[in-house]
Amino acid sequence: MKLDKIAKRFRIDKPRKFRLADHDPAECCGLSIDKDDAKILLAQGLERLTVLQDKLYASDRWSVLIVLQAMDAAGKDSLIKHVMSGVNPQGVEVTSFKQPSAEELDHDFLWRIAKRLPERGRIGIFNRSHYEEVLAVRVHRELLERQRLPDDLDGKKTWKHRFDDIRAFEQHLARNGTLILKFFLNVSREEQRKQFLERIDEPGKRWKFSMGDIAERKLWPKYMDAYEEAIRETSTDAAPWYVVPADNKWFTRLVVSGIVADALDGLKLDYPKVEGAALKELEAARKALLAEK
Amino acid sequence: MKLDKIAKRFRIDKPRKFRLADHDPAECCGLSIDKDDAKILLAQGLERLTVLQDKLYASDRWSVLIVLQAMDAAGKDSLIKHVMSGVNPQGVEVTSFKQPSAEELDHDFLWRIAKRLPERGRIGIFNRSHYEEVLAVRVHRELLERQRLPDDLDGKKTWKHRFDDIRAFEQHLARNGTLILKFFLNVSREEQRKQFLERIDEPGKRWKFSMGDIAERKLWPKYMDAYEEAIRETSTDAAPWYVVPADNKWFTRLVVSGIVADALDGLKLDYPKVEGAALKELEAARKALLAEK
Repeated sequence: MKLDKIAKRFRIDKPRKFRLADHDPAECCGLSIDKDDAKILLAQGLERLTVLQDKLYASDRWSVLIVLQAMDAAGKDSLIKHVMSGVNPQGVEVTSFKQPSAEELDHDFLWRIAKRLPERGRIGIFNRSHYEEVLAVRVHRELLERQRLPDDLDGKKTWKHRFDDIRAFEQHLARNGTLILKFFLNVSREEQRKQFLERIDEPGKRWKFSMGDIAERKLWPKYMDAYEEAIRETSTDAAPWYVVPADNKWFTRLVVSGIVADALDGLKLDYPKVEGAALKELEAARKALLAEK
Repeated sequence: MKLDKIAKRFRIDKPRKFRLADHDPAECCGLSIDKDDAKILLAQGLERLTVLQDKLYASDRWSVLIVLQAMDAAGKDSLIKHVMSGVNPQGVEVTSFKQPSAEELDHDFLWRIAKRLPERGRIGIFNRSHYEEVLAVRVHRELLERQRLPDDLDGKKTWKHRFDDIRAFEQHLARNGTLILKFFLNVSREEQRKQFLERIDEPGKRWKFSMGDIAERKLWPKYMDAYEEAIRETSTDAAPWYVVPADNKWFTRLVVSGIVADALDGLKLDYPKVEGAALKELEAARKALLAEK
């Protein structure tokens, strides 16, 4: 199976039928390659991305928003490092959303998100995002209480309203020139266990681990339910979700790199053309420069 | 001469004695290497930077601010691309300061700068900066008028006051954990001419050129005077200027890469240590994870 077909396979095109249980975190689509080959493929993907990003920046017409969501240790950080390191940092901005500040809690939940949206010509990567508002906040009801919402929004309809608002927000962005790609890195509970143990055992990674990670892990089934419904409710043509197997990191990286490059390709980007009066000006400038000596 | 000695050489340690005329834009310190060797050296520098940046991020104690100033076509953009591409984009943010907006003009000139300062753990790169306020704004007095300053600041003392304010601002940042490195990419007027002609002739670069660039070029001597005084007045221990020859781009890149890596080295960065109670917690987590199966 070719890589571009593999990529399409993970796009949630029929969200109403989406069931997380149908998606195997360990899947590799029959692809079996060694580490070195994976590196070569990823380097090729990076080269493609680099060229496309340069044109995206030059044409200054579209922005690209990449949303990354996943359980801990699914590899969000290392994905950013491996897929995007090498792309010109002038055209890429990564935002990690942490616990909202007091000021942020005094605004609607999209306020801090909107402030970090990429401008035209840029790729913005959200490491966690507004989706935490229907994931962590849904699993931890006390986080919702901290938001001091109007009474009638704080009831059963909260999640339906949030899905509505998120869809409308993303639709608005898409209509105004933002290409949106949302990735759920689908890691298994067993793989998370392995990754946590690795973190604990490696001195260079140990500091990343906290007891809170163990507490969150216990809520796994609740998180999976929340993810399933969030993806079902918000995978749209304007802002599709991709559910990418994440037990094999080399595979995750190849798939995400391919999806991003394909999506950029679809924009038919090119360098701005210099024509007409502008071209004549350029000729005049050329002559003036040559005449200097 | 070794690279680290070369780097020190371009640091303006005695600002009162600084004269731009003493600095040759074409200097290579006797280093004569071919393109491939330069690439290898730069790749080694990148590897060093990558390791250091990871520790900077993990230790979350210092931020790094890199200020890039130069005449057009000196290679600021390509420097960012070549020196920083490959460093994890999660730890690097690039801000290009353009003409201030109406809202920005309604604030003091450091307001928009402060908003884009890198947070702890990050490297912030300013592609142009607050120094435009004593460079472009000094050369184009009409830009100063748009700022609607109080009468007594709009006179002769404006530049002295600005230098004072910038020094104080940078001193404050340094005291609060920001490592500041300021680079003037020192390109010659003749090299700019060559670069402009290249831009005009290459279809992929043509869009970058505007007639405004020719107009600015005519103001070259005024800009050089402004740079000389700005560097003289604001090269401090807390925030030194480096005047880096920029007629040979491979050399510029090697020097800047070396200076940044050396400065990060000087912070003696390391991964956070997990000790005492935290280490015991980690052990408990380890046992809990192993007991799961």
